[in-house]
This record gives sequence, C-alpha cells and structure tokens, in this order.
Amino acid sequence: MYDFVDRLIALALEEDLGSAGDVTSQALVPSGQRGRAELLAKERLVLAGTDVVRRTFLAVDPTTEVDLPLADGAIVERGRILGSVSGPLRSILIGERTALNFLQRLSGVATAAAGAAAALEGTRCRVLDTRKTTPGWRVLEKAAVRAGGGTNHRFGLFDGVLIKDNHIAAVGSIAEAVRRARAAVHHLMKVEVEVVDLAGVAEAVEAAAEVLLLDNMDTPTMRRAVQLIAGRALTEASGGITLERLREVADAGVDYVSMGALTHSARGVDISLEVRPGA
Amino acid sequence: MYDFVDRLIALALEEDLGSAGDVTSQALVPSGQRGRAELLAKERLVLAGTDVVRRTFLAVDPTTEVDLPLADGAIVERGRILGSVSGPLRSILIGERTALNFLQRLSGVATAAAGAAAALEGTRCRVLDTRKTTPGWRVLEKAAVRAGGGTNHRFGLFDGVLIKDNHIAAVGSIAEAVRRARAAVHHLMKVEVEVVDLAGVAEAVEAAAEVLLLDNMDTPTMRRAVQLIAGRALTEASGGITLERLREVADAGVDYVSMGALTHSARGVDISLEVRPGA
Amino acid sequence: MYDFVDRLIALALEEDLGSAGDVTSQALVPSGQRGRAELLAKERLVLAGTDVVRRTFLAVDPTTEVDLPLADGAIVERGRILGSVSGPLRSILIGERTALNFLQRLSGVATAAAGAAAALEGTRCRVLDTRKTTPGWRVLEKAAVRAGGGTNHRFGLFDGVLIKDNHIAAVGSIAEAVRRARAAVHHLMKVEVEVVDLAGVAEAVEAAAEVLLLDNMDTPTMRRAVQLIAGRALTEASGGITLERLREVADAGVDYVSMGALTHSARGVDISLEVRPGA
Amino acid sequence: MYDFVDRLIALALEEDLGSAGDVTSQALVPSGQRGRAELLAKERLVLAGTDVVRRTFLAVDPTTEVDLPLADGAIVERGRILGSVSGPLRSILIGERTALNFLQRLSGVATAAAGAAAALEGTRCRVLDTRKTTPGWRVLEKAAVRAGGGTNHRFGLFDGVLIKDNHIAAVGSIAEAVRRARAAVHHLMKVEVEVVDLAGVAEAVEAAAEVLLLDNMDTPTMRRAVQLIAGRALTEASGGITLERLREVADAGVDYVSMGALTHSARGVDISLEVRPGA
Amino acid sequence: MYDFVDRLIALALEEDLGSAGDVTSQALVPSGQRGRAELLAKERLVLAGTDVVRRTFLAVDPTTEVDLPLADGAIVERGRILGSVSGPLRSILIGERTALNFLQRLSGVATAAAGAAAALEGTRCRVLDTRKTTPGWRVLEKAAVRAGGGTNHRFGLFDGVLIKDNHIAAVGSIAEAVRRARAAVHHLMKVEVEVVDLAGVAEAVEAAAEVLLLDNMDTPTMRRAVQLIAGRALTEASGGITLERLREVADAGVDYVSMGALTHSARGVDISLEVRPGA
Amino acid sequence: MYDFVDRLIALALEEDLGSAGDVTSQALVPSGQRGRAELLAKERLVLAGTDVVRRTFLAVDPTTEVDLPLADGAIVERGRILGSVSGPLRSILIGERTALNFLQRLSGVATAAAGAAAALEGTRCRVLDTRKTTPGWRVLEKAAVRAGGGTNHRFGLFDGVLIKDNHIAAVGSIAEAVRRARAAVHHLMKVEVEVVDLAGVAEAVEAAAEVLLLDNMDTPTMRRAVQLIAGRALTEASGGITLERLREVADAGVDYVSMGALTHSARGVDISLEVRPGA
Repeated sequence: MYDFVDRLIALALEEDLGSAGDVTSQALVPSGQRGRAELLAKERLVLAGTDVVRRTFLAVDPTTEVDLPLADGAIVERGRILGSVSGPLRSILIGERTALNFLQRLSGVATAAAGAAAALEGTRCRVLDTRKTTPGWRVLEKAAVRAGGGTNHRFGLFDGVLIKDNHIAAVGSIAEAVRRARAAVHHLMKVEVEVVDLAGVAEAVEAAAEVLLLDNMDTPTMRRAVQLIAGRALTEASGGITLERLREVADAGVDYVSMGALTHSARGVDISLEVRPGA
Repeated sequence: MYDFVDRLIALALEEDLGSAGDVTSQALVPSGQRGRAELLAKERLVLAGTDVVRRTFLAVDPTTEVDLPLADGAIVERGRILGSVSGPLRSILIGERTALNFLQRLSGVATAAAGAAAALEGTRCRVLDTRKTTPGWRVLEKAAVRAGGGTNHRFGLFDGVLIKDNHIAAVGSIAEAVRRARAAVHHLMKVEVEVVDLAGVAEAVEAAAEVLLLDNMDTPTMRRAVQLIAGRALTEASGGITLERLREVADAGVDYVSMGALTHSARGVDISLEVRPGA
Repeated sequence: MYDFVDRLIALALEEDLGSAGDVTSQALVPSGQRGRAELLAKERLVLAGTDVVRRTFLAVDPTTEVDLPLADGAIVERGRILGSVSGPLRSILIGERTALNFLQRLSGVATAAAGAAAALEGTRCRVLDTRKTTPGWRVLEKAAVRAGGGTNHRFGLFDGVLIKDNHIAAVGSIAEAVRRARAAVHHLMKVEVEVVDLAGVAEAVEAAAEVLLLDNMDTPTMRRAVQLIAGRALTEASGGITLERLREVADAGVDYVSMGALTHSARGVDISLEVRPGA
Repeated sequence: MYDFVDRLIALALEEDLGSAGDVTSQALVPSGQRGRAELLAKERLVLAGTDVVRRTFLAVDPTTEVDLPLADGAIVERGRILGSVSGPLRSILIGERTALNFLQRLSGVATAAAGAAAALEGTRCRVLDTRKTTPGWRVLEKAAVRAGGGTNHRFGLFDGVLIKDNHIAAVGSIAEAVRRARAAVHHLMKVEVEVVDLAGVAEAVEAAAEVLLLDNMDTPTMRRAVQLIAGRALTEASGGITLERLREVADAGVDYVSMGALTHSARGVDISLEVRPGA
Repeated sequence: MYDFVDRLIALALEEDLGSAGDVTSQALVPSGQRGRAELLAKERLVLAGTDVVRRTFLAVDPTTEVDLPLADGAIVERGRILGSVSGPLRSILIGERTALNFLQRLSGVATAAAGAAAALEGTRCRVLDTRKTTPGWRVLEKAAVRAGGGTNHRFGLFDGVLIKDNHIAAVGSIAEAVRRARAAVHHLMKVEVEVVDLAGVAEAVEAAAEVLLLDNMDTPTMRRAVQLIAGRALTEASGGITLERLREVADAGVDYVSMGALTHSARGVDISLEVRPGA
Repeated sequence: MYDFVDRLIALALEEDLGSAGDVTSQALVPSGQRGRAELLAKERLVLAGTDVVRRTFLAVDPTTEVDLPLADGAIVERGRILGSVSGPLRSILIGERTALNFLQRLSGVATAAAGAAAALEGTRCRVLDTRKTTPGWRVLEKAAVRAGGGTNHRFGLFDGVLIKDNHIAAVGSIAEAVRRARAAVHHLMKVEVEVVDLAGVAEAVEAAAEVLLLDNMDTPTMRRAVQLIAGRALTEASGGITLERLREVADAGVDYVSMGALTHSARGVDISLEVRPGA
C-alpha cells in the first residue's frame, strides 16, 4: 500500500520542481554544501506524518538523513524540536516545503482526532473517520486518525458494505437492499445500512442488518433507536456531529460516532523547518 | 499540465476502489440501471473545481454525462443546484464521494480567496497564494485561488526566484544572495528577496532586488519600508496576515499580500449529491 | 478496478510486440487491408473473458470492432461461433494470440467452476475460489469463477480477515488471535479462523469467531465440527478437496467449500480465431 | 527485460493488497516481530521461478532476506526444503501467497518441459515452446521452459517471421508470402512458413523458406515431408502433439516439435511456505 | 509499439509545459479563440514524422484537427505547405515547438537516408541504419530511414545476432563465438559476425556465419573479402563510410552498407508553423 | 527533475532490449563473467553527459561501477581515456550503445556551445540556447549548453514570457500583447517580446516590455535598435545567426544572442567504448 504514498510524493515534487528544478537554491547554494535543519513545533500538536516526511526527503535525495525520533501519536508541546534533516543543503531546501505541507496537515488531522477521542474518554463509544478524505491522501489520513487515537471506518468502497440513502432509493426499501447485499457480498463482510428514523431502525433490524448508521438523528431519537435495536446490531451515529455534541451522543449508547470533519476540515498546524548553517 | 490532475484523480479512485471495486453498489444496483443526480450547495460558496468533477466522473465511466453550467468563480447561494450527472447509476455512486471531496475543498479555497479579495477591494493591493498547497493539488488549488479573485504567486520552485532567510543564512548576506541569483538565473526572471527589517530593505534595494518580501513586519515598519523603497522594487507583505488585518496592510502601501491560509487552512464547504431515482 | 485489466493487457501486448512490432504481418499484410475473423469453440465450454478480448483488440487498434454477443457464463457447445472481430487485418492478427490466451484460460476457469457448482446442485453449500489465482489476473479470474456459477471468497488481503495456521503460531493461540483481530479491524468485517481439529473448533467458537475454516479434515470430523458449532459460526471446508469429494463434503453440512484448483490448475480450453479473408 | 517482471509483481501485489493492506497480519503480528519461513516441495518437481520469488519478497519489503540455494532447473524430490525467507514476519506473510503462486506455476511449466525433453532424449529433435503463454508472464514462462530443458521458439511477434495459415490466406499463396516476407524483413531473420500437406512443403521449399512448420500432419506425412525437404530447410512439427506421441514424431526426422501445452496447460505444482516462529 | 511514441510525446510535452503550462499563451490568447496554422517547408526535404506531429497536437488537445495530406517519404520542395492544424489557438501554440522539433529532425533523417539511397541507385547494394539512434527515438528514426528509402538493420539487441569485436575478445575466437551463438539463439535467427581482415573472413565463413560485417576495410580488401566469401554469406560494409564513398563500396560487391550518420548526425531541416489568424 | 532523465533512460533501454533482451551477449558471455571497458575520445571535444552515462549503466545493472573522473565541461583531447565501467561483462555490453548515444550527442552540444562562447569572448554578450531541443532531452541538453559555457534561456513554456509573432498577430498589436501579459503573469516574471523592425522596437519599449527579441535583423538595424532602446530593456538577437556572424552581432551591442543550432543541429562527437577483457 506504500505505493500510493510514493505516487503522491512524486506528484507533489514534480508539481513543485517541474523540469527546471529549484532555480533559487541552484543559484545560491553550491552543490557540495552540506547543512542541517530542524523541524520545530510552533504550537501544541499531536504528531503524524513522520514517515512521509522521511520519504519525501529521500525522494528528493537518497543521501539525506532524516532523524525523527518521535513516533506518530506523540503529543508535542509548542517550541519542541521534532527532529532534523542533514545532507546536501540544496536537497534540504528543495524538500522543505513539500515535507512541511504533509506534516502540517497530517498532524492537524491527528490533533483533531485526539480532540474527539478525548471527548469520548471514559465512554465505550469510539470516534470513526469517513471517506471524506483528501483525494490522494487516504492512506496517510487514515493513519493520522489512528495516530490521534481515532478508529478507522472501512478504508474504501471495497472493504465494507454501507447502504446509503441513494442505494435505498434505487432499490426501493431498506429490507430489500439489505437482503440483496447479504446475498451478493462475501461471507466475511457485514452489512451496514443508513436509517433516518425509528421505522427505518425497525425495518433494518428485522432485515438482519449487522450495523446501523443513525443518520442526522437528534439525541433522544438516537437513544430510542439504541433501545429498539437492543444489541441486535452495532450502531454508528453520523451527520454533522460537532466536538461539543460528541459526549452527549456517546451517552445515548451508540457504539461509534463518525466525523467527516476529522479529515475534511482539519487545519494545518504550525511547524517550521529552520536551517542551522553552522551545523 | 492536465496530466497532474489525471494522475491525482487516478490515485483518488484507486485508493477508494482498489481491485475489488464498490461492493455495495455492485450488490445493489443492476449494471444496466441508469440514473441522474444533482449537486446541491448546502451553504453560500464561490464555486471552483467543476472541471475536476467532470473528469472524475468520466474517469469512472466515459459514458456519464456531467452538466455543470456554472463557471468556476460563480457565487452560489445556499440551496442552489450546481448541476447534474447522468448515466449508469452505479458509476454515479462510485464517483460521488471523490468528486465531492474535490469540489468541496476547492470551492472552500475559492471562497476563502474571495473573502480576502473583497477585503482588499478599492485598494491597488492584491492577495497572493503561496506554495503552502496540498501536496498533489497545486494545479487545482492555484486555479481555485484565481476563481475566487486571488492572484497567483510563482507556481513552484521552477518559475521564480524567492530568496528566503535560509538562503541568506547559507550565503552570508542579502546583497551577495541577490547578486548570485541575478548572475545565475535567466534573463526573464526577477529576483525577490525576503527582508525582516529596514536595514534589510536598504540592503536589498541597494543590491537591485526587483521584489521585496516584507516578512512578519508590523504595519508601521511596513509603511516605512514602502517609503524607503520608493518605487524601486515591488513589495509583498507576508507572515501570519489574517483577513482582519488585510486592509490595514494594504493601506501601508504594499503591492501584494500573500496568505498561506488560503490553501493550507481552507475548510471544505458543504455540497451534496442527491440521486433522483425517477430521473 | 478496470485499471488492473488495462495494465495487464498492456504488459501482454508489450511483451509480444516490443518496439519492433509484428514483423510478419507488417511484411505480408498491406496496412489498408481489412478483414474479419471468427472465434470458434473447439470444445464444450463455459464462456468467460469476453470483455478482456474486446479490450485487447481495442488496445491494439481502437478502430477494430468486436462482436461478442454471448454473455460470460454462457454454456457453449463444440463448433459454435463465439463472435467476430472486424477491422484492419493486421490489427486482428496482432491481437489474435493475446486475446485467445486470455479467453482460453478464463473460459477454462469458468468451466471448472461450473463443474464444481454442478456437483453441489441441490445442496445449500457453495463453492468458493481462493487467493491461489494467477498473479496479475485476480480481477479476471474472480469474474470467471462467478461466470461459472462459483462464489467469490474475499478478494485479497484487504477485504476480509482470515487467520491461518501461521498467524496462530505467531500469536500463540486461536483465542488470542481472534481477540486481537476483532479489536483491530473495522466494524464491518467478520473474523474467520482456520482450525484443524475439534479442539480448535471449540476454542474458535468460544472466542466468537464468526467463520471457521475447517482445514484438511476428513468428512466425519467435518460433520462433528458442524454439529459442535451448532450455527454459531459459518463454516468453510478447505484443503485438497476434489470434484469427486465435493458432494460428500457438502452433505457434512458446511456452508462453503473452497477450491484452489479452480484457478491454479484450470486448463486452457480450445478456442481458435479464423480469418475470413473474403469478409 | 526485467522491467516486465517488476511490473507483473507490482500488479500482483497491488491486486492483493490494495490501499488497505493485509488487515489480518496488521491486526495480529506486531510490526517489530521477526520470523523465518521455509519453502517446502510437497511433490517431485523441476524448480523454476526462484528469482521472481526473491524479487516478490523484496518488493514487499527490501529488508527481507531470501535464501534460495538451488538453481532453476534443479530436480527436487518431495519433502525437500527449497530455501527460506527471513525478516519481519508481517512482510513474509504478505508476500507468501503471491510468491507461491509464481513459484508453483513456473515450476509446473519447468516440470512439464522436463517431461517433454526426457521423451526426446537420445534423438536430435528438440522441444519448443510457443506464444501460448499466460499474458503478462512471457519472460517468466520462457525461462521456465529453458530451466526444464526445453528450447525457446521466437520470443514474440518481433523477433522472427512465422507465416501462418491466416497470412497465406490473406496473401494468396505460400510462395508469394515467403517472397514478401524475405523482401521486407531484415537480413538477420529467417523466414518460417506453415504448411499442411506435401504440396505446401514443395511450394515452400521452392520459395526458399528457411524453416517449415508442419502443421497437424500425421507421422507418415511428416516423414515424407522431411524426405522431400532433404535438408533444404529446418522442420518444426506442431499441432496437438502429446507427450505420448513425441518420440514417434522425433523419429520422423523433424528438427523441432513445438508444444503449446507446456505453458497453456501446465498445472501448478504443490509447494508450501511454513513459518518457523521460533526461528 | 506505439506506446514508445506516446511515452516520448508525453515526456516532451511535460518537460516543456511543467505544471504551470504555457504562461504566454494563457495570458494572451482567450481560451475560446480558434485558429489555423500551416506547416511550411523552408528548404527541400524528404518528409517524415507526420504521424508524430498529429499525435503531438492530439496529446495537447484532442479537439485539434491535423490535416497532413502528404505521406512520409514525399519529396517536398522549398516553400511548399505541408499541411495545417486547426483548433483552439492556445492548443496550437502549445504544441507548435514540440511538433516542429519532431518533424524537423525526422525529416532530416529521411532526407539523409534518401541521399544515401540515391547514391546507391542502380546497384543491388542497400543502405542500412544502425543502433546509433537518438535514445528514446528508435521507433521514429527507423521509420524515417524507411521513409527516405533506406533499409532497416535489426531493430535492437533482441531481434538479431551481431557478434562484435568485444564479443570475440570475450569468447576468444570468431569460430567459437559463431558456434555458441548458433547453439543458443532460436532457429529463426541468422548469425552475423564482425570481421576486420581476410583471415577473419575465412574463419567466419568456415564457422558458417550467415552474415559478415566487414568493419573498416578499405575498398580493395572489401572486394577480396566478397570474392573469398563467394556467396556463402551475406556481406555488410560498415565503419565511417561517407556519402562520397558509398558507390565505390557498393561496387566492391557487398550486399549492404550501414551508416550510423543517417541518425546520429542528421541535421534538423527547416520547417515553420505559421498561424493564419483570420482563418 | 531527475525523473525526466530516468524516464528517458528507461525508454531508451526498453526500445533496445524489449522483452527478449540482448540475445547476442546472452548467447556468448557467461552470466558470471566480469569485465572492464574504457570510454575513449576519438576526437577533441567538450565533455557533457557523464551523469546520464553513469545512470544508464546503473539502470542496466546496479552492480556496475562507473568511474568518470572528468567533470562535464572538461575539454578533452583526441585519444584521451574519459573513464571506465567495470562489472558483469554482459551488463557493460548491454548498456554500451545507449550510453554512447547519450554521451556522443550531449558532448556534441557542449562542443557547439563552447565554440559559440569562444566567439563571444571578450564581449559582454552571451550566447543562449532555445526550445529547439530534442523532444525528451530538454534537461540534458540545457545542462550540456551550460557545460560548454553557454547560457540558458527560459527552460520551457512555463518559466518565462516570450511573445512571438503569432501571439502578436492573435492579439492585434505589440502594445496590447505586452499589456495583457504584464497583467496576467506573476510578479517575478519579466515580459519579452519579439520585434522585427524599429517601429516594433519603439512600440515595445513604450509598452514597457522588459526584454526585446530582435528577430532576423541585419546588423545595422540591430545597432540602431540598441541605440533606440537606450538601456530601457534587455536585448536578444535571434534568427539564423551563424557562428561566423556572432562577433559582429555582439558588437552591435545586444545583451544576448540565441542559437537554435546549438541543439537542433549538433553533431554527435566520436567516442568509443573498448572492452579490456583481461581487466
């Protein structure tokens, strides 16, 4: 699966370098000059993306050495040195921006996931990511969610059945949709179906759906849904759930809450790379 | 340059579909069933990314038809139908999430750029993007900034000289860095250099730098810098400039303000795809 | 997922054509000469691979027209015309061997699967394929198994948990392996575990494994395993099961039988392409 | 030419791993755990494919060490250890099935070729492969035929002229086809032409064809053809020749016999990989 | 084999366009503006490369229409319009330079080949190209040589045996080298061997080499070599043979003369593209 | 940017090796035999392309060792050993021709550039290359021009604005074209415009073009143009300027002269690779 990351790194370096390369560094820094640079956290964050940083610099120049001693998932205070890169100074400058662009966004995702996980601490409910990831970044953002303490949902369209409103509309009913899915997919897959009200809950449980996605329900409805299901299926709450509402949703008794915002609205955290020319 | 977008779309579809494909839609939707779906703006936004939406659906299935009548840059009110996709229903469902992931983020970037451009209206100062884009997305995000009314900075490391603090530290002085750059790069490129104080401004102008990046200066210093330069170089203000401070910075007389946040912290705007099964 | 097939077709055409192309056809057949050829079944077979035949000829030359009216899964008698290819004669001759190599092998897989499915007719047991497919051909061979009336197991390592002897040895016990898997994988996946004796069956059921792979058991042991499980898990028999033994295994009450031989030992069936020069 | 093999290995690993990877091994085997596994011949075989096994494991993980001391072509008795793989246990488990799928099929081809070569021992006739190889596997299967003691025919459409019935039909006569080929192809290539009866033999020899493919002739006709040719061209017998008939065909005096079954109907031989957890 | 050309065109467009594209045309020419341009021969030439010109413009923009009515090999006088391109003006301007760079060089190769072929007119000797082609351009330059009336030698290392001085040194003798080659390569390949003097000629003929490359011989030695060979092998003269000396070499009786200069020193002929804005 | 070179090397090796490889060396040279070969300059030259030679041999076989002690730009006399390659003899023979094809052409470009630079010695005028490079070779030929002492123009269409006759025709006037370009491109780019007479010079200077390309002017006109410009813009002379005329053009006072012939008509210099079998 590493191939996806290598292809994304290649795309990122090519869009930034083109065929002409880094004209500034080529003009200013002699090709033999070596250097060392430090990665510096400029705000509190949960770290994610260290492996892609390492691979970005190695893709630029296999002779660079990247020393990132902290594991993904580490909580890092503002002002902390995250690690360093040594090697030809030109190569460090060429990789700097791409590496930071990866690290800042992925640590942003991990930090958001950690916030959600913290909100659920002490409950048995877990926060899930979604497929609302940055196109091209699925592998990286799923790992960042795990680094932050979140739980992954299915990886893609290929490894889990999730019947949504559009599927139900196309098929005609929840029951028929669940039945068709059960008949068609292999015996290691469970069937999850989206429901929007208690009638749907009843129909889905009746049809033996193994997981129910409770879509955009208010908390009292969710609570009644959980009671109605009575352990016959797993439950996942979804739909515009904010950090503030997480605890309340968990207390309604659902097994999982999924939050698209973990990935689609994560902010890049502030990290800089500072060259130490004497080094 | 379209090749970058095609490669990113391929990466996105492959990470989502793998070799097994969309198991849910394959199970539920007969391969011959056709459908139509509408893209719906669920909040006010400036549109960007329509071309990548079109190409995503065509990459899934060349027989889909995508009708997106609005041009990028259109201001769209909440509740507006943005356009539609017709074709095999399975193909629409397979492309849905990837297409939306592109459209939501890119319209988010355009919306942010439009906000910044509006803040500068009536001044002669223009807002620039930076290289703090999502790795793999440079072509798309640069276009989204333009759609929103922003102005592009250099595209990458290859099409403009920007001497930054790390370069100056490596070379030893602003003057020597500007001189080396001027001697090395071709005659169609201007040289921009980052300065952090008025001494740097003086040295850079003396060295005949053609553009000065005023880094992290407070507004009074910026104003004095502009006076000191006296038209001998273009000026670009940069460094943590917020939407709120934009107008003040413009009034200090700089030609450009660059904002990394346009791309690194843009939020995905809310857009949904709704299948119209009867259609 | 079609991308995998395109890449395999490209590999196949490149290994056969190189940079110099088909020197014989270039020498003998004028570039403007058109022709028509028929695909002829030279033995009874279950058809599979028509789409890859079509795409092979189109990859050679997009102006060829491939008319294959039978659907995959059709039972075809010896001597039957399967369809035809029309277009530049050179292009037909260039694609002939590669197209036949695909069609003969895939129809061989479908024919084998149909034989196994027929042996199970009237039982509720279904025959599964395995991951013992031809490297590079997974998508095609899985589809051929379905065309023949077989049922697909998981597609790859990514869409289902199957704990095998080597995993159990690494972890220490069946129970611990099932527990770890359940904790780590997402909530839409069931856990299958391989067991070799009745003690293993008991341990796996106790650990709440959802599917049991009964590996290399004789029929009486299988029957006792099914009784012991008593509906608490699905069962899959595996390990050197021949066509002759299939019925007996089904009668032991298992839900599935998996047969590697469907793909790893399928014989290419006999199909030829005959040019009709007057056509 | 190695590139073809790398591309096939990549295709095989990607179809099996997707973007989500081996969910079972990720769940069960800690990323630091090391292991060692042995490859075990479970039946008598002629070995082929050791290099692709080595490269498959290295493609999964460059830190694995593959020790396969036997050369391709070695005759291996049932129960013999073929070699071993050491390294991170997860990587071994990820590569296991793909590596075995390659090794089993290629050793099957080599074993088939060795059977044919043995049948011809003591004659001056040699057994040839054909272009009826598994699409994508040409390089590997050609090498497996050599490992088993068979002789390669032309590699593809690009490195030898073979005029077949369809070409003759298109051109109008054997003589004209041979003449055109001779005029068009470069001076290092001989021209081979397919003939089905003694009249064709006479015409081909008259036209100075350098090699004659005797297609689907019975043995007495073949013998007369050889006498008629009288050393003026090389001869290759082809068309449904079984292992049983090989010796008789050789005794008819032909130089070569080609057998499509060496590759299109080779059975995968039985080889397993057994993890030695204590190792 | 077309794949090689597509890959080269992609490389050429990417090195020229990068991720930022044609900044001049984007700035000046509205995206909707259409245009028409003519290709104009500015000197007498033999045309080659029309197909790659067509494919270059289509790679830039599939909606362009390229009308090149002359076939490769046409002799074109100075001032002649070669054809035209119509479509979005931006696309024409983007493809212009790359298309011309192809057409000028390939027509240069064809023109050089035509000159050599003309020098041999009336003899039975033919001029061959070599493997001294522009890396990446083999398919194109081989076709240009044919367009000019030259004859192709082997295409690459894969489709013909040519034993050169370095091989002979490695093996020890001409005779042994020929013997080994004959034993190893398939039965459709002839063996050519390089000889530098008459002793070598004798040894090669004795060893039954089918083609002799007479390397760097003066004309009298060549003549004696041809007499010594007496029809038992084909002959190819090679090594620094100029256009001026061609006729003399042919008169020495050799079958072929090979000239590296056809490809490694062909000059680009002068062709321009002129936009007709009113069109 | 190295990616472009790797892709070109891959294309070159694949077109020469195909799937069947070097049949001669495979037949003659045992796979274990090692060797050493020297690169020999057979005429005086300026060296360029050593890095691509190194990478070509490493692409063939990572165990070869390439020792090329001279830097690109070195002036090498006839008969000088340029360096050596050691490793498996087969690998050396496989890479020989491709490596030489690169080195001969690139050293030819550097030698041509050095000739032009020498002609300008003592003037302040510099010789520029153009975009008339060999498609696929831009990175390599630009570096060879620098190695020979020439100066690079813009790298491609993406890193500099050059308004040519066709653009002006499309827009309507020089002044409008310059204005549009200035408004559209980023602030680090200068605008160059082509002019063909003194009226154009005046219009371009008036429009504040920063660089003027004086196209196909005779020397007196060029001199008057320089006087008219009076330092308000840089000047580049272009259009059929020969080595002989260079000095005269420089003396007219232009800043740059660009010569397409540096790349489109450079001749391959003579370099050979000689295997030292005893080594």
